[in-house]
Amino acid sequence: MIMTSELTKLSQEIRAGNRAAIGRAITLVESKRTDHEDRAQELLSDLLPFTGKARRIGITGVPGAGKSTMIEALGKKLTAGGHKVAVLAVDPTSQRTGGSILGDKTRMSSLAADTGAFIRPSPAGATLGGVARRTRETMLICEAAGFDVVIVETVGIGQSETAVASMVDFFAVLMVAGGGDELQGIKRGVLEIADLIVITKADGGNEDAARRAAGEYRAALSILSPANPSWRPEVCAISALEDVGLDTLWQTVGRYYDTMRDEGALEDRRSEQHVSWMWSLLNDQFDAIVRRHEATRGEIASLESLVRKGEITPTAAVRWVFKLLRLDRE
Amino acid sequence: MIMTSELTKLSQEIRAGNRAAIGRAITLVESKRTDHEDRAQELLSDLLPFTGKARRIGITGVPGAGKSTMIEALGKKLTAGGHKVAVLAVDPTSQRTGGSILGDKTRMSSLAADTGAFIRPSPAGATLGGVARRTRETMLICEAAGFDVVIVETVGIGQSETAVASMVDFFAVLMVAGGGDELQGIKRGVLEIADLIVITKADGGNEDAARRAAGEYRAALSILSPANPSWRPEVCAISALEDVGLDTLWQTVGRYYDTMRDEGALEDRRSEQHVSWMWSLLNDQFDAIVRRHEATRGEIASLESLVRKGEITPTAAVRWVFKLLRLDRE
Repeated sequence: MIMTSELTKLSQEIRAGNRAAIGRAITLVESKRTDHEDRAQELLSDLLPFTGKARRIGITGVPGAGKSTMIEALGKKLTAGGHKVAVLAVDPTSQRTGGSILGDKTRMSSLAADTGAFIRPSPAGATLGGVARRTRETMLICEAAGFDVVIVETVGIGQSETAVASMVDFFAVLMVAGGGDELQGIKRGVLEIADLIVITKADGGNEDAARRAAGEYRAALSILSPANPSWRPEVCAISALEDVGLDTLWQTVGRYYDTMRDEGALEDRRSEQHVSWMWSLLNDQFDAIVRRHEATRGEIASLESLVRKGEITPTAAVRWVFKLLRLDRE
Repeated sequence: MIMTSELTKLSQEIRAGNRAAIGRAITLVESKRTDHEDRAQELLSDLLPFTGKARRIGITGVPGAGKSTMIEALGKKLTAGGHKVAVLAVDPTSQRTGGSILGDKTRMSSLAADTGAFIRPSPAGATLGGVARRTRETMLICEAAGFDVVIVETVGIGQSETAVASMVDFFAVLMVAGGGDELQGIKRGVLEIADLIVITKADGGNEDAARRAAGEYRAALSILSPANPSWRPEVCAISALEDVGLDTLWQTVGRYYDTMRDEGALEDRRSEQHVSWMWSLLNDQFDAIVRRHEATRGEIASLESLVRKGEITPTAAVRWVFKLLRLDRE
């Protein structure tokens, strides 16, 4: 497709690492205007061959688990080592006005000021799917701009962890140790996708509690069948404040990439992610169409209600929707 | 809708518990012919007010975990107590000719001969979604026919466990104890949906191993945040052969239902299942339409391939599909 000279220039500036251009492109991607959507897709198609070269790391943890502290400490080490680090976020509760607690530059002020780093708060969005799509596209822009580490952070709301795990190579779950006998529980769906469990705040008298917690999580992981034949999930403990364990953590990430690359598993994982994303986008968009298409939008709420109460079968409701959309016989 | 007199009679016979009628209705539901589909949906709509009164129990376990033995032993106890027990199956690998290993009457021959029981092998189907839909609809027929316990068994292939968990009230995972030091691993996705872990074959010298295994699974479960505020998943051990633990197991199921009903949680769970099923059916059917609609079927394989290789963005592929279906602007 022929891009406008304006978009061509923007694409070149992004690939040259121009921060203002990156910001403009992300704003375009986050916009809901239809003309902006069209231009954003053209731009992304143009940038696509320049993407894919970063390490994509997902990080989750409850508020208070120490995400910002860890990301800042890790990010500073990486930029000191010559890496270019982007920090993005998926927060389905974020509003356009008002702050998300994620990607908050005030909590990572030293990293925010670092010329080797780029921090962007979560896009706003009506649905998790909408937010996740914009974050994925922002990640592509950052990669095309030369960032070689992209960190995507999220909190444990709804399916946000699953959404982030499906766009990254490696997913780390932060858990706090200490604070009593009660071991912090892990959501079952999160245990399923974790490549690494990180016990944070292993300092200030918490070291024993951190070691015990690590042991219990390792025991729990050991009863699970490996989902990934190339990698058994691990557990580590860190203190971001005292700079303990962060180098080991990054070495663990390195081992993961070495193993996955040796076995061709990284490309396979990303290929499957691309195809899954395509079908889930297809379904998200179809759901959105059903809810707003003039043929169906008046019906869908009452159909859902009848189905919920068990008064019509889901199959009957679905047949009716396809009849209304004229997609039933072709 | 006005039903034919033939369908009206079939509906009445089903509700009277007539086995031949039940079989004919299930065959209608399993059929792929369009005219049969239409009649099946009419029949199900007519039966719907008479459904919902059974306990819906899902059971999974690897081959060799002892599902057939347990289901037969439990089924015989229940029929002896006056219950009417249907045993269905979801096996996405089942073929129309040739046997599924599930719902196999030869492995549950005593129960198969029991007049209070009804065993049906898995429907065949091209996709898991197709098989699961037919099993759900068969469950509705069995409930309308007066069965008050419906057991749906599956094996751990693909997403079959998640599919079954989404159509039952209570999901039990069978694990074998014994056979060396190695504890059998649980798939992480299965741990997420289990209401009860059943250690089987706790006999013949395996009793200690079973007790140890139970302890380890309980420890693993204890680190997980509860998904269901009304129920913490439990672990029990049984020997179906020696009739040890089965009464306790059924009492556990009873406690589950009492708790869930007291808190209105059972109705909520079923309502959510109905609505989720509607949307996932909508999406399955839409995916099927995309793959076979004359406007898109020639394109979809190459779009998927380009997306897989990272040569076009998933978003671009999806926009193209909706353009082809003329659903892009409305």
